[in-house]
Amino acid sequence: MAYPGYGGGFGNFSGQMPGMQMPGTGPNMLPGGYSGYPAYSDNYSSADDAMWNYFTAVAGQDGEVDAEELQKCLTQSGISGTYSPFSLETCRIMIAMLDRDYTGKMGFNEFKELWAALNAWKQNFMTIDQDRSGTVEHHELSQAIAIMGYRLSPQTLTAIAKRYSKNGRIFFDDYVACCVKLRALTDFFRRRDHLQQGCVNLIYDDFLQGTMVI
Amino acid sequence: MAYPGYGGGFGNFSGQMPGMQMPGTGPNMLPGGYSGYPAYSDNYSSADDAMWNYFTAVAGQDGEVDAEELQKCLTQSGISGTYSPFSLETCRIMIAMLDRDYTGKMGFNEFKELWAALNAWKQNFMTIDQDRSGTVEHHELSQAIAIMGYRLSPQTLTAIAKRYSKNGRIFFDDYVACCVKLRALTDFFRRRDHLQQGCVNLIYDDFLQGTMVI
Repeated sequence: MAYPGYGGGFGNFSGQMPGMQMPGTGPNMLPGGYSGYPAYSDNYSSADDAMWNYFTAVAGQDGEVDAEELQKCLTQSGISGTYSPFSLETCRIMIAMLDRDYTGKMGFNEFKELWAALNAWKQNFMTIDQDRSGTVEHHELSQAIAIMGYRLSPQTLTAIAKRYSKNGRIFFDDYVACCVKLRALTDFFRRRDHLQQGCVNLIYDDFLQGTMVI
Repeated sequence: MAYPGYGGGFGNFSGQMPGMQMPGTGPNMLPGGYSGYPAYSDNYSSADDAMWNYFTAVAGQDGEVDAEELQKCLTQSGISGTYSPFSLETCRIMIAMLDRDYTGKMGFNEFKELWAALNAWKQNFMTIDQDRSGTVEHHELSQAIAIMGYRLSPQTLTAIAKRYSKNGRIFFDDYVACCVKLRALTDFFRRRDHLQQGCVNLIYDDFLQGTMVI
């Protein structure tokens, strides 16, 4: 197994083979621009209106949503389909994933980015959850993570599966929380891994700033 | 402001001044043995029986509790007092804080350690929440973190306060979640900071193993 290995796509199974985002292959390491992140923001002109309506219905006067507003917005949009709506905790880390200036809020452009990611993750989850039980098994989560391009040790995959399961199974909300955290923590790490070697030097305050909010 | 600075006490306000746990002052860096962690396990012989009863009432045949069982156990014990019972998410990170072998479960010794920490944190929270509103303000959380001995930048403190608040205030469950994560992430970092200089070199898989479960 190759170490280190970064994933970081949105869980876009089709056409994205493991290993595509190996370090050094990305021409641009800035958030959202790294190889493997589709440029969603230009692709959804017809869906933009619906998203804008969901967003503005709950956004405050500042044109941004906090975690509570995001939860309301996503619930009203019905994006979870037949699965349970997202918990506040999951919405908080969704905000943190894209909150590069640590305001604790999300603007419309970030919301669109999130929306696309959520749709891709939901599609992936439904692919695994073929009997529509609403849950998937530990090894299915591990496989999904591997297919998203993340190169993790078996120990790490096992620890993650245990962390995000309830009674041995993983529900949609926890699956998404796991995907959000994987992407956010990987982004945090990669932005500091200037040589893309899978190894970084971190000072304590920076480490806590990145990891406490995710 | 001095950087780096580690806190890591259980939030034991009295007799623990900021700066007491500066790097290099701890004779023992192993989890639970670091300067600043009281040796709780030997101090509670009379309370042990009550804790043992709460614990065994929900522990499985393996003598350990998972996050759901821990939540039930803590709720039944009434440790939250007049505050809301702990959420499953908070119980999950409580498990992760002491789960050094990544089993996703907690034995009785770890439960005792957690119990002592929770009582100290609750005491601290009640000290701040003098009107018993059940919530504290951003700057009160920041002060509490500083008094616990953590040396964090204003930016990090602000980001943390935003992350753990609801409608601008911090509830007991979120306060404890914040304390648990601060301690767990600091422990993770400190175990790798062999020279205690507030700076570590991390590889990607290790970083994710530590931060994904917390």
